[in-house]
Amino acid sequence: MMDKLKRQMGFIMEVDKLKEIFRQSIVSSGARYENDAEHSWHISLMAILLSEHANERVDVLRVVKMLLIHDIVEIDAGDTYNYDEEALLDKRQREEAAAERLFGLLPDDQRDEFMELWEEFEEKKTPEARYAAALDRLQPMLLNYMTQGKSWIDHGINSDMVFRKNRHIEDGSEVLWDFAEEMLNDCIDRGYLKR
Amino acid sequence: MMDKLKRQMGFIMEVDKLKEIFRQSIVSSGARYENDAEHSWHISLMAILLSEHANERVDVLRVVKMLLIHDIVEIDAGDTYNYDEEALLDKRQREEAAAERLFGLLPDDQRDEFMELWEEFEEKKTPEARYAAALDRLQPMLLNYMTQGKSWIDHGINSDMVFRKNRHIEDGSEVLWDFAEEMLNDCIDRGYLKR
Repeated sequence: MMDKLKRQMGFIMEVDKLKEIFRQSIVSSGARYENDAEHSWHISLMAILLSEHANERVDVLRVVKMLLIHDIVEIDAGDTYNYDEEALLDKRQREEAAAERLFGLLPDDQRDEFMELWEEFEEKKTPEARYAAALDRLQPMLLNYMTQGKSWIDHGINSDMVFRKNRHIEDGSEVLWDFAEEMLNDCIDRGYLKR
Repeated sequence: MMDKLKRQMGFIMEVDKLKEIFRQSIVSSGARYENDAEHSWHISLMAILLSEHANERVDVLRVVKMLLIHDIVEIDAGDTYNYDEEALLDKRQREEAAAERLFGLLPDDQRDEFMELWEEFEEKKTPEARYAAALDRLQPMLLNYMTQGKSWIDHGINSDMVFRKNRHIEDGSEVLWDFAEEMLNDCIDRGYLKR
């Protein structure tokens, strides 16, 4: 038992590093980039609040587990910006090695469970994974909306790119995609997002 | 439906401010203070990993919900350091007003659910609340351990104070309190925590 607990604690201490993995999103105060730990908190809370809008009935605890761990691989692999086509090419390879090392710190049963949850999230084949992926894409849009599109503008992102990259939100939740479309059109009208 | 979704989104955008509420804990890199959003992510993940060590069987989703929302009141009320006896005097009053305003942004059913979860966490009367409270106290100790007791030293905290303030961890998990005691004794031996 003590050996198991020590492995769990070793993992818990190691993943503290997620607080220093910065994303391209800017927090609503406009002061700085968001990190992965904050992002994971935010979308886990969204998962609980918005589950009635998922296309299919979902196991909310399973969704939350996926979202709490989905970015842990970035401790080793780094954050890959969703619009960086070159970095996306070897993302999978970098993240698989990271998953092996990081989840490998856990006791065997929990390593296997977390590997499965992470794979499920990546593959987007279950209702839980599709709903989780929808939240993971919707949240950066909310931050862009709140910061007058600062991250989109800094990176030269246009509305075609945003619609194309995020349309899969509708696979998890048509209601949330309708909301996102309305918000994106509002962002275009306000000059936060160029056509 | 759209009105409900708009209230949910209004809340989700408002609580982004939790990322700017800083605690007295220092993240493991030693670079800066931890914020409430990161802390909430970390202990929610701990809740999932460590549930086998709770004294009583717990509903893990309920624990995670409590932990994801337990610090939201600090957006209005500010973080109250656990060793600041003066600030602790009117903590409850400040936080109640904050809960009314912030959870009041939600649709009525979710406002009621979140108010109940927050009250349950504060009262520590259910197995879920006691286990959640144990994690909320254990995690800052882990950060102190990883940063050579920097926050304890900066605030002149000694081992008597730490043992007294955190002993209630054992009400949620005797296994985690045993681990914490061992770690605290190790901190004393290493000079991270003065006697």
